[in-house]
Amino acid sequence: MAKNTLHTQKSATDGPSVNPKFQAGKRPAWTVEELERAILVGDRAALAAGITLVESEAAEDVVKAGTLLEKLLPHAGNSVRLGISGVPGVGKSTFLESYGVHYLESNEKARLAVLAIDPSSSKSHGAILGDKTRMVELGRHERAFIRPTASSGALGGVARATKAAIVLCEAAGYTHVFVETVGVGQSETTVSQMVDAFLFLAMPGTGDELQGIKKGIMEMADLIAINKSEGEHAPAAKRTRVELQRALQLSTRDEFNWTPTITLISALESQGFEELDAAIDQCIRHSRGQGWFDEKRRRQSEYWFEVEVQHALRSVLRRHDGLQAAYDDLRAKVGQSEVGPLQASKLFIEELKCRLDR
Amino acid sequence: MAKNTLHTQKSATDGPSVNPKFQAGKRPAWTVEELERAILVGDRAALAAGITLVESEAAEDVVKAGTLLEKLLPHAGNSVRLGISGVPGVGKSTFLESYGVHYLESNEKARLAVLAIDPSSSKSHGAILGDKTRMVELGRHERAFIRPTASSGALGGVARATKAAIVLCEAAGYTHVFVETVGVGQSETTVSQMVDAFLFLAMPGTGDELQGIKKGIMEMADLIAINKSEGEHAPAAKRTRVELQRALQLSTRDEFNWTPTITLISALESQGFEELDAAIDQCIRHSRGQGWFDEKRRRQSEYWFEVEVQHALRSVLRRHDGLQAAYDDLRAKVGQSEVGPLQASKLFIEELKCRLDR
Repeated sequence: MAKNTLHTQKSATDGPSVNPKFQAGKRPAWTVEELERAILVGDRAALAAGITLVESEAAEDVVKAGTLLEKLLPHAGNSVRLGISGVPGVGKSTFLESYGVHYLESNEKARLAVLAIDPSSSKSHGAILGDKTRMVELGRHERAFIRPTASSGALGGVARATKAAIVLCEAAGYTHVFVETVGVGQSETTVSQMVDAFLFLAMPGTGDELQGIKKGIMEMADLIAINKSEGEHAPAAKRTRVELQRALQLSTRDEFNWTPTITLISALESQGFEELDAAIDQCIRHSRGQGWFDEKRRRQSEYWFEVEVQHALRSVLRRHDGLQAAYDDLRAKVGQSEVGPLQASKLFIEELKCRLDR
Repeated sequence: MAKNTLHTQKSATDGPSVNPKFQAGKRPAWTVEELERAILVGDRAALAAGITLVESEAAEDVVKAGTLLEKLLPHAGNSVRLGISGVPGVGKSTFLESYGVHYLESNEKARLAVLAIDPSSSKSHGAILGDKTRMVELGRHERAFIRPTASSGALGGVARATKAAIVLCEAAGYTHVFVETVGVGQSETTVSQMVDAFLFLAMPGTGDELQGIKKGIMEMADLIAINKSEGEHAPAAKRTRVELQRALQLSTRDEFNWTPTITLISALESQGFEELDAAIDQCIRHSRGQGWFDEKRRRQSEYWFEVEVQHALRSVLRRHDGLQAAYDDLRAKVGQSEVGPLQASKLFIEELKCRLDR
């Protein structure tokens, strides 16, 4: 593809040195046009600034971010997007560091962006941020870009920002985007709506409670890697593989009817990575071959349209002259226990319907 | 309070035997009026059926559930609501079982409802359900009611159902409601919007990654209990307490300026429960004394009003004659990549604004 070739020729590596604004050590005041141009030639500082822009909830930034995304969208879509998850303690950071480096070393045309969603801290803006500093080698790699997305409260906001960050990374020429998410539950469901395949990290001899949690996540896993399978853990890792295979047979699989591949790896000793490469490759090729790859992305686009509408609705209705007064009035009454939340919601919706049908 | 006295006199224990509909072994077709009456006298079968009703997303059930909630709301609000969380493996089920039994045994007028949110399985409807069967003794207790809420996809749906379940439990005379949530992140934020205090379970010598996750959650914890502090773990538990105290000093605290109490417990050996009782009691009394208790509930009501409006909006707009066509058309175009999700959302919102301002 011409677009991809262009990206491969342009270098994402000269990053910070490209733009003198960044070197000055101050936060550069990019215009949207500058960001667009710089991101398209793979300028890392611009990419970072662009992601900061799409994460922002300030009104002026939201408008700018929308313009930037519209301009970059035609240049996006050319990467393989892989979701990565696993319960806390499974070694996600170590895995991303060592597998990321391996991945780049064995694919010399690959450029890897790692986006990490951290939904655990709504107040301190990123408890896990510290973790990323552990990815020292990958962080220094000339063809890698690492970006943690701190939660600003609602998971929906983080999800939208991460979805936008994928677009920006692809426009900047990254051929592979790993979206990492922390642990358990809801964030995986959201991430599965933005990736082509989902890799779930497990570990040998996981306890009862983890097995329970695992089940839900395994239902959305396309690939499973059992980490920490080195040395003395090898027998336990093999047993876990058998158990997981059994569990997979029992669990509901989606319509695509793909049976997840289970690979034994050791992030610590960089073992089993070739097998994992092959498993990922096979999964993506299978998906493309069956037309599922495009079908999945098509459905994901529709999903994100719904999310965007849902997100926009709130501010539109609250800022609408006539409706705002009704909303604020009902909200206050709820606060005073004069009316219940459910009843108040009904009253507001009736007001809205009246206006729509006028 | 007269209302409370009534509830204490009526027994929640005669549960299943009260209603012959249940004994027939078939799912009873309750009317809303029957449910209301039976729940108010503490009929457990009715309470269970009522929660099933508020969890349902079928259109007819949603209407019924709304009516039931409106009728029961005036009888709700009289319990102490405690959120309980902790990373997987910390022993939440064991804790709920042993502390729940202790709690009921030491408060003979207490009736305890345990609601568990399980956001991890969106496809199999409740991976953690199996866990609850572990609460054998508590489950058999005449003054206990245990109910897991399986996720039906969006966390928002589960949250609304759990919020409604609290209302039902309170109307049924439960004086204490424990809302348990699994592990990490977003579900805690949601649960903190429906409880009076949040208890976070930790364990001795937690690893690096858990420490990171902990930070975000600790910021919303009002109480911390270090589980598994028995025997040989005691020294490690004490060190963890010191570490947590240090971390608490560093973390941002909310405006209520309450410093979380840290208690050492052992769910396995039922140790430290009196100290935990005292800590919970102190926290709630402090909160009431300062007027925070009511202020928190007031804000939570406003929050739930916003959630309800947000939830209702989607169906109203999608079912609206004129708007539905625009929505479906844009959604299809997004699927065909004719327009991006963000741009399509903007177009829809403009259509909506036009109609509102007509």
